[in-house]
Amino acid sequence: MSSRELMIAYVREQMPERRWTHTLGVMETAVQLANRYGADPEKADLAALWHDVAKYWPVEQQREIILREQLYPDMLEYDDALLHSHIGAVVAQSEFGIEDEEVLDAIRYHTSGREHMTLLDKVVCLADYIEPGRNFPGVDHIRELSEHSLEQALVAGLDSTIQFLLSKGKKIYPLTMLARNSLIDHMKGR
Amino acid sequence: MSSRELMIAYVREQMPERRWTHTLGVMETAVQLANRYGADPEKADLAALWHDVAKYWPVEQQREIILREQLYPDMLEYDDALLHSHIGAVVAQSEFGIEDEEVLDAIRYHTSGREHMTLLDKVVCLADYIEPGRNFPGVDHIRELSEHSLEQALVAGLDSTIQFLLSKGKKIYPLTMLARNSLIDHMKGR
Repeated sequence: MSSRELMIAYVREQMPERRWTHTLGVMETAVQLANRYGADPEKADLAALWHDVAKYWPVEQQREIILREQLYPDMLEYDDALLHSHIGAVVAQSEFGIEDEEVLDAIRYHTSGREHMTLLDKVVCLADYIEPGRNFPGVDHIRELSEHSLEQALVAGLDSTIQFLLSKGKKIYPLTMLARNSLIDHMKGR
Repeated sequence: MSSRELMIAYVREQMPERRWTHTLGVMETAVQLANRYGADPEKADLAALWHDVAKYWPVEQQREIILREQLYPDMLEYDDALLHSHIGAVVAQSEFGIEDEEVLDAIRYHTSGREHMTLLDKVVCLADYIEPGRNFPGVDHIRELSEHSLEQALVAGLDSTIQFLLSKGKKIYPLTMLARNSLIDHMKGR
């Protein structure tokens, strides 16, 4: 098997079938967006393949890795759904020797976003919102925006996340708000 | 004239009549909330009197004072509506010698909120949302919440601010998000 086939076999084994289908959708969409906006499609494909590798790992195991690897321990005070992104980068690096920091960052920040997101960060984060299997209020509007502005579409995606957190009375992770603010500044040329 | 009468005359002169009516509403509501939740009603009255003193000052003048006094220069990158709160504390101190830091903080943070808000901060910030003259979507729900939980009502108020900023494509001031996160932690006993 090629290295890519080995990676695919490994990642697929870490998740239920429907999450693998989602992963394939993110890979396809990330490559499309990369081609549209001038990111590297191979890096987009690779980051998308790995983005959810740890999504179904037990939360306790995820929390332990965050502490052991000294990754953003403040994340532990927020939604557990944030943890798997950083674990994904750890696993891609330790199990398959992926060392490209641009790819690792796109995996790390695909859920939260961050200030001053790279082009690849944006492509993977947005692909995760709009891959063909996604179905949440407003997703079609985000898909339309993604045809002409990566940043506008991503702001709309982050808006939907913040709306969801407001409606549930949950805390907003600071990086998510900073990501959105930074994208708004970027669109204004600041 | 008493010192309070002098202050009232000064503050009233800085704003149009409808904003003075709003100020009277905030004073009344802040005293009610202070009595309900065990804050000092005299401090609540004083902070509420001063909270909007600079609201109608020219924005350029407000920005200059922020820079001169070295007050949170990062605010200048956000909505101009944030500035007047900090100016209010400067004016109350310099023009009328108010030195009570609890009162000054409640003036400073009445718009943005902040992490770990004091009881007085919460009372003044919430009174500003729900005084009798306020009329925005959801205000009656916040008034109902204010009958039994200062924190729940204030989270609902901050939610309405964040919703407004999302709907306008505006940036969210970090302290506002931190205020909301911190109130949620407080309610969970963290």
